[in-house]
Amino acid sequence: MRRFEDMDIVDLQELQIELQNRYDEFKAQNLNLDMSRGKPGADQLDLTMEMLDCINSESRLIAENGTDCRNYGLIDGIPEAKELFSKMLGVTTEEIIVGGNSSLNIMYDTIARAMTHGVLGSELPWGKLPKVKFLCPVPGYDRHFSICEFFGIEMINIDMKSDGPDMDAIEKLVSSDESIKGIWCVPKYSNPQGITYSDEVVDRFARLKPKAKDFRIFWDNAYAVHHLSDKHDELKDILAACKEAGNPNMVFIFASTSKISFPGAGVAMIASSKENIDFIKKQMFFQTIGPDKINQLMHVRYFKTVEGIEEHMKKHAKILKPKFDTVLSILDAELGGKDIAWWNKPNGGYFISLDTMDGCAKDVVAMAKEAGVTLTKAGATYPYGKDPHDRNIRIAPTYPTLEELKKAIEILCICVQLVSIKKILKSRTHKLHLLKVGS
Amino acid sequence: MRRFEDMDIVDLQELQIELQNRYDEFKAQNLNLDMSRGKPGADQLDLTMEMLDCINSESRLIAENGTDCRNYGLIDGIPEAKELFSKMLGVTTEEIIVGGNSSLNIMYDTIARAMTHGVLGSELPWGKLPKVKFLCPVPGYDRHFSICEFFGIEMINIDMKSDGPDMDAIEKLVSSDESIKGIWCVPKYSNPQGITYSDEVVDRFARLKPKAKDFRIFWDNAYAVHHLSDKHDELKDILAACKEAGNPNMVFIFASTSKISFPGAGVAMIASSKENIDFIKKQMFFQTIGPDKINQLMHVRYFKTVEGIEEHMKKHAKILKPKFDTVLSILDAELGGKDIAWWNKPNGGYFISLDTMDGCAKDVVAMAKEAGVTLTKAGATYPYGKDPHDRNIRIAPTYPTLEELKKAIEILCICVQLVSIKKILKSRTHKLHLLKVGS
Repeated sequence: MRRFEDMDIVDLQELQIELQNRYDEFKAQNLNLDMSRGKPGADQLDLTMEMLDCINSESRLIAENGTDCRNYGLIDGIPEAKELFSKMLGVTTEEIIVGGNSSLNIMYDTIARAMTHGVLGSELPWGKLPKVKFLCPVPGYDRHFSICEFFGIEMINIDMKSDGPDMDAIEKLVSSDESIKGIWCVPKYSNPQGITYSDEVVDRFARLKPKAKDFRIFWDNAYAVHHLSDKHDELKDILAACKEAGNPNMVFIFASTSKISFPGAGVAMIASSKENIDFIKKQMFFQTIGPDKINQLMHVRYFKTVEGIEEHMKKHAKILKPKFDTVLSILDAELGGKDIAWWNKPNGGYFISLDTMDGCAKDVVAMAKEAGVTLTKAGATYPYGKDPHDRNIRIAPTYPTLEELKKAIEILCICVQLVSIKKILKSRTHKLHLLKVGS
Repeated sequence: MRRFEDMDIVDLQELQIELQNRYDEFKAQNLNLDMSRGKPGADQLDLTMEMLDCINSESRLIAENGTDCRNYGLIDGIPEAKELFSKMLGVTTEEIIVGGNSSLNIMYDTIARAMTHGVLGSELPWGKLPKVKFLCPVPGYDRHFSICEFFGIEMINIDMKSDGPDMDAIEKLVSSDESIKGIWCVPKYSNPQGITYSDEVVDRFARLKPKAKDFRIFWDNAYAVHHLSDKHDELKDILAACKEAGNPNMVFIFASTSKISFPGAGVAMIASSKENIDFIKKQMFFQTIGPDKINQLMHVRYFKTVEGIEEHMKKHAKILKPKFDTVLSILDAELGGKDIAWWNKPNGGYFISLDTMDGCAKDVVAMAKEAGVTLTKAGATYPYGKDPHDRNIRIAPTYPTLEELKKAIEILCICVQLVSIKKILKSRTHKLHLLKVGS
């Protein structure tokens, strides 16, 4: 493979024609391939069908503490669900609330309550302050950013490095600006880069000295057990680290079984210090009498233990690994060594993050769309949908079938090359023009 | 039965001793009877167990519109659930959102969003206004009032009449005070009085001319199909009436299957004009990707039609009617004609509302508690927990067994009489004292 920058104009133009032909052939197939969202495929959903047999009309639906799961009550979930998921997250049963089917919902509610009432230790509800800011490691998860946007929280981009966000920048900002109240993190197999924060990064988070006494780390551990193979990344325990650093109340941990059991009917949770959890439960009293406890019971009866969850995740990995490998091998074959695109090779999670040359992502996504491949909107991985370099594309390889995925990635690679060539040719022509003008 | 007021002091004192003996006997039994919350009993929960067989590992979990219920999506619920419950509430499928397991949660969220963002047509989020007020027909549902209290919304008591709240007062207040943004209503088999609003009341609601352009009626139709016998109250369609009166966006209707299927695992909904629903869906985008769709599908497959729901509710009625009859007959036997307590005879719902003489409710509830009978806290049916007359007691007869209920109501009646006698004797003694002083 040659670097595109090293090729002369004629070679580039020849390649351009060849790629355009391939593109036109795909376009003629009227494809409709969706790689836009991190959704499990139907074959993954099939893995959990037997969970639905764990509850039927003959079941005794009484929780460990004697509560009838069919009736009202237990605002923080049934004891056995708290037991199972607290172990999954490495916290105690006093440090968790198990809720409904959506961790996004719990995150939204957490921010909403902070806006109207504040978090533990807030002097004022955040909504009463002249300005509230959040730090946003980028690229990141669009749904986090849109919650901030909805509540008028100003977002500040923080660059991601290979082992987590730029901690120098974070330390400097949070220690000097009292209006910075939080930061969004996907600390394990991050969305979209698949990066797991190093121990040092976790420790530096735990040791933050925020100017805002009610600063919170929103630790969305969405992919805690979502490995692609036996090669697991390890994430240091943030709550333990925060306690050790004397900041026990600084972190909110979120997780769900959306990508363990069913995205449409899973169980979501928040974990934090007992003090935070007690505070949140008091606030939640006004909102609900309790979550769907039958669904929680069904999950516990099916998975039984953390080992049960881990075994189950191996089945997901078996389906997902070939999809990730396919994407990576096509990226390698089509784009490797050309110095026009860069991507990660994650050990887990749901995404592959592709960086094009600056100023190319939007055009690539639009061009792929025209050939029937729907990608996540360019810019979506940045606050306000604005990628300052216009270069990041989030590839979500899980939902399409392997066959669809092959086509979709091939098309994507053709688009990346075509847009890159166009950009390089334009810049060369411009330089030639400048030379002529100069001579 | 004699009116207590007509009895002389000696007779009252004799009766007092007799009642005190009965009270002490009950107290010695160390009972633990809970009539505090409107919870279905275990026998009612058993009625819906077969619903759990409607979904198992062999089920095809695809919604009518092709959506896989196991996966993400459908923020407003699956089409067949919208179809079923829109018919139950008499609205169209464009006028409903079917959500998770708690209508309280939907009500809370509706207020929460109004506070931070406003409702359709709000010039400012309610939380940005110097003052927000809600009208609260009393006695009413404590959970409504506590939402207002949580958000600092000032509550104004509105007296209930036999056919609904005092509309003269409501009309006068909402047309003159722009800070009044809403009113809480349980329009059918009201909590706690079991009153159903008359057609005239519904029409007057629909024709309100609120000074606040973003005023909303929070129409908690919690007991829409919860009749106790074939004798049904009929509630006029508020949304149709609002449309006719040119106020199509003035009402939010809430309902759930908590007392149809399972309180702990039901399906809740909000209905309103299409314009309101569209507005709410746009706001909800930031909060969730969708509700538990498998649970919705299970409900639809079990109940199938509104007629299916109505048939099911007859089974509930068969369990509940004897409980209500028991309460009413004991109240009649123990308190009838004594002119110390007044109660309603509802055709549906979950409560019997008992009014004591002024200034007695707290003492009665405390005394009953001492004998092992837990009632809803006195005052709970009023905003801020303050019953200005200290007279309303909410009886929730559904949760105890029939045997427990008999004892509990007998104890309650003894307490009402004892507290009443004490009050009457005190007032007589006081009068005697005044006479002596005067002579």
